[in-house]
Amino acid sequence: MEINKTTISEWLQTLQSEICKALERADGKSEFKKDDWQREEGGGGISCVIENGHVIEKGGVMFSAVHGNIPDFLMKEQAHSISDNKKPTIEDTFFATGVSIVIHPQNPMVPIIHMNIRYFEMSNGTKWLGGGIDLTPHYIVDSDAHYFHKQLKTVCDKHNQTYYSKFKTWADDYFYINHRKETRGIGGIFFDRLNTSENVSFEQNFAFWQDVGKLFAPTYVELINRNKHKSFTAENKQWQLIRRGRYVEFNLVYDKGTRFGLETNGRIESILMSLPAQASWQYDFKTIENSEEDLTLKKLKKGINWI
Amino acid sequence: MEINKTTISEWLQTLQSEICKALERADGKSEFKKDDWQREEGGGGISCVIENGHVIEKGGVMFSAVHGNIPDFLMKEQAHSISDNKKPTIEDTFFATGVSIVIHPQNPMVPIIHMNIRYFEMSNGTKWLGGGIDLTPHYIVDSDAHYFHKQLKTVCDKHNQTYYSKFKTWADDYFYINHRKETRGIGGIFFDRLNTSENVSFEQNFAFWQDVGKLFAPTYVELINRNKHKSFTAENKQWQLIRRGRYVEFNLVYDKGTRFGLETNGRIESILMSLPAQASWQYDFKTIENSEEDLTLKKLKKGINWI
Repeated sequence: MEINKTTISEWLQTLQSEICKALERADGKSEFKKDDWQREEGGGGISCVIENGHVIEKGGVMFSAVHGNIPDFLMKEQAHSISDNKKPTIEDTFFATGVSIVIHPQNPMVPIIHMNIRYFEMSNGTKWLGGGIDLTPHYIVDSDAHYFHKQLKTVCDKHNQTYYSKFKTWADDYFYINHRKETRGIGGIFFDRLNTSENVSFEQNFAFWQDVGKLFAPTYVELINRNKHKSFTAENKQWQLIRRGRYVEFNLVYDKGTRFGLETNGRIESILMSLPAQASWQYDFKTIENSEEDLTLKKLKKGINWI
Repeated sequence: MEINKTTISEWLQTLQSEICKALERADGKSEFKKDDWQREEGGGGISCVIENGHVIEKGGVMFSAVHGNIPDFLMKEQAHSISDNKKPTIEDTFFATGVSIVIHPQNPMVPIIHMNIRYFEMSNGTKWLGGGIDLTPHYIVDSDAHYFHKQLKTVCDKHNQTYYSKFKTWADDYFYINHRKETRGIGGIFFDRLNTSENVSFEQNFAFWQDVGKLFAPTYVELINRNKHKSFTAENKQWQLIRRGRYVEFNLVYDKGTRFGLETNGRIESILMSLPAQASWQYDFKTIENSEEDLTLKKLKKGINWI
């Protein structure tokens, strides 16, 4: 296919639809509810949300394709980060399309997952790709962590030997709850503004970016199937609620996508779909030394080689 | 008493202790747990937290008195907002002390309350007072809203006829969840940098500020006693969890005290004490037309005259 904003956003809609089907099959009970929405300033999206499933308590697979005048804060940012001949002017417009996913499972033994892939272009010719996948187990299972990172590394290596190491480190830094000095989970990969290097063509990066999108469903379904039948206690459930509280803290305090959405008058229900059905905060909660919770907490650090 | 940083912080500690006693009496079951903490860069605080009471599910009455070099972001802010002869230099230091309270009740018919009073000074002679009280009923009772605002107006009027109107409007603007286009609750009063006008002495403003602090306990205990015996349903409880979700959104996205704390390496457990034990997010939640929830939601607007 020719790669342009139309074909990219069509490809993303197909991906959204395929991911929803795969997740419905894995859940076995609930189905996605689909909402179309329009953005006043231009464009819109399709929000697919699943609730109260066998496996998934609350999850969203959101597509959007928006366009319009370049927001002020982006103009300022661009003024610093792009070479002079690519600086946007006030007459320029932007187009952005992407798929964002967050899944909060019922069973605390099944991890939370997040994926986002996005494409951005401006009328002055600037364009780039971004994305990321990261996994937030309430209880870290080393073999699952190994599997997850191995999947990501395989896709990265297929396209560029430098990507996994670079994007894994980027994810460690990005998915970090600075005020807790904790990573959100076991990380994954994160990348942005892909298309700025002169060694890799846009087409090559686009193929990598598509592969990241296609990796999501089989990888998460595997992790669901490995863990969904595990039994759990009321204490496991309470720990899940506390970890979800941390997830809320990350998303509302640090996540750039969330803050971008809140600041640019996005569709609130789609932006905050990432927040869990239930979360909990306990004052000065401390894990018991060497408990399962404690062992997980000690692994919420940057720089761990999970493979 | 002579008004200086020592006498102010002692007065605040006494207030903290009296408020804790009044809330323990009103709760009738749980007692406050007291934690002393030190701040690496200078100063510290006393955090008093109550959990799992008859009336209070989770609440904190936090005292702090911290000092040190002026943080970068405050230097920048001061550069814009203070007349030239009062601009701090890199050699200057700051001292800040205050009491902050958030109470999340068990019964959804009892409102959430927040109060903060603070004193700030710099070694260059700049000093000011700030504070606020606001009420967040899960279900607005007009007579309670009237009572609450009347209490605030009485204290304001005693000291300055312009204060209630000015500080009530300020609270409407401050306690506002912009991305929801909702106020956090029925507002109250909010004021900052009191001591910049030439018409009112620091001593007069200090007396007003003390009266705000003293107003908290009797006012909230009255609201507890009016509502604590009311019965409620599972639907009322779920609505409470959703309103608490909004409270979390406000505190993590907008509240200046919270963000100041997170950015200046404050004691996380004291800063995030304001978050509820349990909160909930439901995708695209809609109230039923003319239900009690809907009637409350329609009153979460700026500019309502509650008196």
